[in-house]
Amino acid sequence: MNLKDTIRTIPDFPKKGIMFRDVTTLMTSRRGFAESIIQLSAPFQDIMLDNIVGIEARGFVFGAAVAYELGAGFVPIRKKGKLPFDTYEEAYDLEYGHDVLEMHADAVRRGEKILVVDDLLATGGTAVAAIKILQKAGAKVVAAAFVVELPELGGRKRLEGMGIEVQSLVEFDGQ
Amino acid sequence: MNLKDTIRTIPDFPKKGIMFRDVTTLMTSRRGFAESIIQLSAPFQDIMLDNIVGIEARGFVFGAAVAYELGAGFVPIRKKGKLPFDTYEEAYDLEYGHDVLEMHADAVRRGEKILVVDDLLATGGTAVAAIKILQKAGAKVVAAAFVVELPELGGRKRLEGMGIEVQSLVEFDGQ
Repeated sequence: MNLKDTIRTIPDFPKKGIMFRDVTTLMTSRRGFAESIIQLSAPFQDIMLDNIVGIEARGFVFGAAVAYELGAGFVPIRKKGKLPFDTYEEAYDLEYGHDVLEMHADAVRRGEKILVVDDLLATGGTAVAAIKILQKAGAKVVAAAFVVELPELGGRKRLEGMGIEVQSLVEFDGQ
Repeated sequence: MNLKDTIRTIPDFPKKGIMFRDVTTLMTSRRGFAESIIQLSAPFQDIMLDNIVGIEARGFVFGAAVAYELGAGFVPIRKKGKLPFDTYEEAYDLEYGHDVLEMHADAVRRGEKILVVDDLLATGGTAVAAIKILQKAGAKVVAAAFVVELPELGGRKRLEGMGIEVQSLVEFDGQ
């Protein structure tokens, strides 16, 4: 099946000029969801990953199923203020202002092999923040995997510049 | 393994007197996470469920992996304002004021068999709101499954009163 056909595009969301790629239609497709998890997991079947890190909130959906498929643990990286224990945090830029991501400080151990999963790679801002948090914790981020990539926004280059392998399943032109 | 042992308790979070049951330590346990998904899925292996519904945000983690295990689709129910397409919504009471959950109006079809998954069953307020949304959409909610149940808070009775089968993996006394 063609995964791209299961993704709905919503023009002008959340604001004028943005073509929003809505992956909830992929999730709700029985075959689309299973296929996306198989494809996201495939490059890592022969690596013994310790944990899959999912970025709130759509990254939880894909990351948790990939963790289950690969027999790894799952670590959530959340928006600031949601996690109850000691955390590492990292700010990242939004169009106006910034936001902060957090991870429990004891969620990963030094040297653990980690795959970061999120639904969308655009400029790479949130993924870079997640990787910096993991590096503070001493983990080895092996790769980052995304359902959708917007190549024109340059996220892949930023991540590869940090030595991170990048995988994505579907590409869309433009924003 | 004993799943209960993988859940961390944090006293006085998010406020004095609450014993917060932190399931992130279960997620990060390779064996604990796999075991939780197997146990959540087991009662439904012989029913052809159409979709698993996960409630934002921890319900996404368990619900998505259960959907993958059962070969079903996954439908997110989110806090208001996060979903880009037409939605059904339902308010639910918090200690002070209320909050609103939303689901895409075309995410499920009339008559579809649905399992609702969340991390915690306390008073049942969010689960009841999720079930009402699904009923507006004409879906048949077969059951609701939770990792942790706090039996003293009465959520099970509320859901069973709506004709919903309730499953949970671990119980804790008190709040």
